[in-house]
Amino acid sequence: MRFHTRKWVKPQDLNPNGTLFGGQLLAWIDEELALYAIIQLESPRVVTKSMSEINFRRSAKQGDIIEIGIDVVKFGNTSLTLQCEVRNMMTRETIITIDTTTMVNLGPDGKPKAHGKTKIEFVKDRLIEN
Amino acid sequence: MRFHTRKWVKPQDLNPNGTLFGGQLLAWIDEELALYAIIQLESPRVVTKSMSEINFRRSAKQGDIIEIGIDVVKFGNTSLTLQCEVRNMMTRETIITIDTTTMVNLGPDGKPKAHGKTKIEFVKDRLIEN
Amino acid sequence: MRFHTRKWVKPQDLNPNGTLFGGQLLAWIDEELALYAIIQLESPRVVTKSMSEINFRRSAKQGDIIEIGIDVVKFGNTSLTLQCEVRNMMTRETIITIDTTTMVNLGPDGKPKAHGKTKIEFVKDRLIEN
Amino acid sequence: MRFHTRKWVKPQDLNPNGTLFGGQLLAWIDEELALYAIIQLESPRVVTKSMSEINFRRSAKQGDIIEIGIDVVKFGNTSLTLQCEVRNMMTRETIITIDTTTMVNLGPDGKPKAHGKTKIEFVKDRLIEN
Amino acid sequence: MRFHTRKWVKPQDLNPNGTLFGGQLLAWIDEELALYAIIQLESPRVVTKSMSEINFRRSAKQGDIIEIGIDVVKFGNTSLTLQCEVRNMMTRETIITIDTTTMVNLGPDGKPKAHGKTKIEFVKDRLIEN
Amino acid sequence: MRFHTRKWVKPQDLNPNGTLFGGQLLAWIDEELALYAIIQLESPRVVTKSMSEINFRRSAKQGDIIEIGIDVVKFGNTSLTLQCEVRNMMTRETIITIDTTTMVNLGPDGKPKAHGKTKIEFVKDRLIEN
Repeated sequence: MRFHTRKWVKPQDLNPNGTLFGGQLLAWIDEELALYAIIQLESPRVVTKSMSEINFRRSAKQGDIIEIGIDVVKFGNTSLTLQCEVRNMMTRETIITIDTTTMVNLGPDGKPKAHGKTKIEFVKDRLIEN
Repeated sequence: MRFHTRKWVKPQDLNPNGTLFGGQLLAWIDEELALYAIIQLESPRVVTKSMSEINFRRSAKQGDIIEIGIDVVKFGNTSLTLQCEVRNMMTRETIITIDTTTMVNLGPDGKPKAHGKTKIEFVKDRLIEN
Repeated sequence: MRFHTRKWVKPQDLNPNGTLFGGQLLAWIDEELALYAIIQLESPRVVTKSMSEINFRRSAKQGDIIEIGIDVVKFGNTSLTLQCEVRNMMTRETIITIDTTTMVNLGPDGKPKAHGKTKIEFVKDRLIEN
Repeated sequence: MRFHTRKWVKPQDLNPNGTLFGGQLLAWIDEELALYAIIQLESPRVVTKSMSEINFRRSAKQGDIIEIGIDVVKFGNTSLTLQCEVRNMMTRETIITIDTTTMVNLGPDGKPKAHGKTKIEFVKDRLIEN
Repeated sequence: MRFHTRKWVKPQDLNPNGTLFGGQLLAWIDEELALYAIIQLESPRVVTKSMSEINFRRSAKQGDIIEIGIDVVKFGNTSLTLQCEVRNMMTRETIITIDTTTMVNLGPDGKPKAHGKTKIEFVKDRLIEN
Repeated sequence: MRFHTRKWVKPQDLNPNGTLFGGQLLAWIDEELALYAIIQLESPRVVTKSMSEINFRRSAKQGDIIEIGIDVVKFGNTSLTLQCEVRNMMTRETIITIDTTTMVNLGPDGKPKAHGKTKIEFVKDRLIEN
């Protein structure tokens, strides 16, 4: 799994009990899933359709640095299924896992549209091809 | 299902495609689940342990008013299982559903602790009893 | 008075003295007034015109759950006058009261426009009628 | 009236109708009132006790620059009464006015405490005296 | 140097070590530079082109009140060069200084455009002239 | 240069002209610099001391995905000097560059403290060594 985006847990990310607010964590994950799908599908209009069970394994505290990892599970015709793991960057302990998240590519009419992709591509390679 | 908290979809709640950002919606839901559990369990230290599959049925747009509904599925020994639905307040169309969310009551040591509750209570009734 | 929207007082809602920031509370109230008026007047374009004296009775602290109540005072021709109370959900103590807030319905030209409403309606009833 | 703090109306400050969200404006004003009182009373623990009627005269739109003005109405024993005006910086048109806002100085026990001030002082003069 | 905008350092402005988050401070400064340039150039479309070395002299803590000062260094043909200082309002100690910041005026095509200004003007004087 | 954290430019990140707000970009960079230094120095208490000239090369617009790259310039005794580049992830065009940023390691007394590091380490290697 490739881990990219990192977050520093700040006071405004905490719940009233002083640990990382789960809602903030879910918002960070949803953004990361969306941008990962947009990059792979080369389409700006991708939405989260469903997420499988979410397990909150451990919490994080103020000052912790976490990183968000994404991997492709499957390329569908109009969809892209991703898995996600968030971990504490210093200890490598898992904070949350989501086995499958289905992202759907939409056309200008807001309806699912075939994206034509079948495997992971790297932006670097695409640019070299040009 | 009882619907309480309402949100007005504002520009800062949108994703770059101009519809309600899913991550913001999940953050709103997680807050509502937490406060519902805190009120029912009369305990300030409740955490989200897991969420079952999440289905994004419909999106919402700027200016829409949505409301978040919560119902109890089951009182466990240290846990409380909730279900959640978010709907558009004007049309009553469902935006998102989560069948079961497990909230766990923690003691001062951060470990699961029996909460002693077995059924829904209303704050109003509690206060009258005092 | 009907209490709907609930808020969980989080670290980012506090002033530097560690109690609920009054400005945040006023922002929450203004949103609730607006969406209440939009629902009643079935018009998306409603603005706050004036608020009567505001009394901050008690503060709230991190972890408190508060709820916002709204009631109709009067239906005018182009306006809707509301009253508002915010209370601590666990103790039912009043945090803030505003006796009258005048909301005005605007037409597409930004000028006050008759809204045609004279009494409280429930969305549920409107939908059944359809 | 002395105008200090200026704000640039950005997308995240708007309501869904595309004008400055009144709740955001009230939050900006409440912060300015608090810091003005803290400076005058040389006390970090000052709270907003009440605000007189608030009139929203004009709105503001994205890109507008507004400035917030504060003046002292009266020094009480434990309180400081302020008035406030917000205006559009380019046109000088008034956006909102609040005739009197009562700020109260609190002691370490959270109760009103005499502040010993009777007139406006400038930080510059205080520092020169030292 | 003229100091206008004031900020009250709140919990959401802190880094995890409990002092003012430098990134928040830079965001406040960038907004103040932009609105200062917009007012002087009477043009809504001004962007930050470059900033000279930034020195963080002192930090600030929760509850501090800071003020942001701006001065003009030079009027160019399409640009305006500003300097900036942020200080603690109570002690007058300097928090950060930026010697030169180059702001550029843009035309509707997004390209640099002559602004026709050569000296500082006050909005008050402009309005009187009208 | 290693690029990690990615951001999706959303409506709340824009200035009133509809492009990425420079202050938001600087806040994102400052967070990334801090967490990079914390990881390398294995010390939670690191502050930004100075930044060299900042050049805003290109802007970004709503929906763009940007990534932030950091590299080490030099390990000092109590400091770590970093360089930073932000680029558009799809086109690889540079948005902003900062040649040197000096981060300083602080001891519990808030004064500079030797960090004992002389070269880049990877968390993975550290964990394997344990």
